[in-house]
Amino acid sequence: MKLSDLGEFGFIARLARPILSGLPRGVKGIGDDCAVLPWTKKERLLVTTDMLVEDRHFLRSGISARDLGYKSLAVNLSDIAAMGGRPRWAFLSMGIPSGIELDWLDDFFRGWREAAKPSGAILLGGDTTKSPDRLVVNVAVLGTVRAGLEKFRSSAKPGDIVAVTGNLGDSGAGLNALLHGGPRDRDERRLLRAHNRPRPHLEEGSWLASRPGVRAMMDVSDGLDSDILRIMEQSKVGADIELDRLPISPTLVRVARRRDWNPVESAATGGEDYCLLLTVEPSRFKSLAAAFTRRFGRPLSAVGTVRSRARGLRYFSNGRAARLEGRGFDHFRKM
Amino acid sequence: MKLSDLGEFGFIARLARPILSGLPRGVKGIGDDCAVLPWTKKERLLVTTDMLVEDRHFLRSGISARDLGYKSLAVNLSDIAAMGGRPRWAFLSMGIPSGIELDWLDDFFRGWREAAKPSGAILLGGDTTKSPDRLVVNVAVLGTVRAGLEKFRSSAKPGDIVAVTGNLGDSGAGLNALLHGGPRDRDERRLLRAHNRPRPHLEEGSWLASRPGVRAMMDVSDGLDSDILRIMEQSKVGADIELDRLPISPTLVRVARRRDWNPVESAATGGEDYCLLLTVEPSRFKSLAAAFTRRFGRPLSAVGTVRSRARGLRYFSNGRAARLEGRGFDHFRKM
Repeated sequence: MKLSDLGEFGFIARLARPILSGLPRGVKGIGDDCAVLPWTKKERLLVTTDMLVEDRHFLRSGISARDLGYKSLAVNLSDIAAMGGRPRWAFLSMGIPSGIELDWLDDFFRGWREAAKPSGAILLGGDTTKSPDRLVVNVAVLGTVRAGLEKFRSSAKPGDIVAVTGNLGDSGAGLNALLHGGPRDRDERRLLRAHNRPRPHLEEGSWLASRPGVRAMMDVSDGLDSDILRIMEQSKVGADIELDRLPISPTLVRVARRRDWNPVESAATGGEDYCLLLTVEPSRFKSLAAAFTRRFGRPLSAVGTVRSRARGLRYFSNGRAARLEGRGFDHFRKM
Repeated sequence: MKLSDLGEFGFIARLARPILSGLPRGVKGIGDDCAVLPWTKKERLLVTTDMLVEDRHFLRSGISARDLGYKSLAVNLSDIAAMGGRPRWAFLSMGIPSGIELDWLDDFFRGWREAAKPSGAILLGGDTTKSPDRLVVNVAVLGTVRAGLEKFRSSAKPGDIVAVTGNLGDSGAGLNALLHGGPRDRDERRLLRAHNRPRPHLEEGSWLASRPGVRAMMDVSDGLDSDILRIMEQSKVGADIELDRLPISPTLVRVARRRDWNPVESAATGGEDYCLLLTVEPSRFKSLAAAFTRRFGRPLSAVGTVRSRARGLRYFSNGRAARLEGRGFDHFRKM
């Protein structure tokens, strides 16, 4: 059997089975944005790790060293944000091909520091080694969260409102522009920037984790279409997503019109938005959304409703059942 | 400037400079086998991470999936052993090329579990992704050590005895056999096994850390010749190494005779022995070595003496100054 027949999530499930049984109390492994470990009396330790491989996750011609340094850390910070935590320490492993110059590496670390500084994450170590040809970057981040406030993918309940903390689709459309001749104008450069320099929603994550009514939470990395399935699996629920309510930036609307792209498809399947996807107790949603807007100056967008497991994932558009053309990003299926 | 002009350690030093200044109390980063973080009142948290890239650190034709799974974890456990710690949790990132079959991955995890089980390290998460061609494995391990017992590279003092906890050179000679037509007989297969399935000296490490007189400690990964320099740099000392006292296995002696290799050179520069290299207060060495032999049934081998920094690194053979032909392994210089 080939790995591609199983898909990334199938492989993880196969790998996870012998692991998830018999974990000690207070320890949570595979299946969420971070592993959760005991720490001090009042805090839990969060651990996340992500690998980026050249020509798979990035093209060296498509992203500057500085942006790659920024993004390598930012995507891990986003996992900490998804648990409601605060990043503390980071570890960086790099496999470096011989063509890379020191200037390039200095730019990489300049970008890294731009992500690290506002987040408080301190680089403590890692591993540097040669790679025969492709650049490989692996980042691990340790964070902390107040015990009891950590948010899991497994806490959604039927009736919950499904919401996101930012616009969807900019990053995916930016990548699309890059892969189709490069960005043509300022709008497309802005979308590519959303792809290359995603902002981890750390403030939003820890604020949301401390509010009543927030149940499940994760970050949007593979695309809403794919990520909502993770919440459904972990929480054993279904979901209705209203495609006409996905928050889409005016920039994406303009670019999609010019390029003849479907902005809703980009929003639902694009991936790498790195905003947060959460479910909220329905009676709490209105006041939570109002407080969110007061605090962050933008909406907390309701995009659907959690349903019973038997309903599966259903899309609606203007109240009528709808279908999506593309699918979210599965690392093993799509190559 | 090319990275290869700087060398791995130069790059790490360049990278470390802005990081090592201003770390909070109780935190130690780059420059040792593990980073050290606060944990409970009585314990410290240790973190280490290592990246293995196909065709750089291993040939897929030269190591079985099972041995690679074993070794990927074992080399990280060795870093925990070097601090005197106990491994607790592991995180595995894999970049997997499309040619790899599920059977191969199952064997990889079989080997992984063979390293994990006796050590107590629990796999809690990681990242699996596609890689365009080469397999990449990154492992991060978290461990703990009783506060105050953690061992650093920076604690050696002039006069200390330099010692190792196991034979040197088997692993390097095993690799040599692999690269020169493959192992020819049982002896060479045994050396290759030392290379492919190194045993992390976890029991030895935590036992030594709890004994009086043990000062600096690290594991032998790049080769004694290169690793002793790390202790010298961090402790600001020099060292005399007595080449005729390096512990060499009868197997290596036999193979070296048949192959016309220099076993002492293999012992001094081979690398990947993954035993421990330590320095011991001279007045404590004799009783420590006797207790070590009672506990582990093999010698704690004295191989040299720590000197003042000005003396640098000097080799002796039968009391006379000597030179080494080969040099230790520097990931950026040797490719």
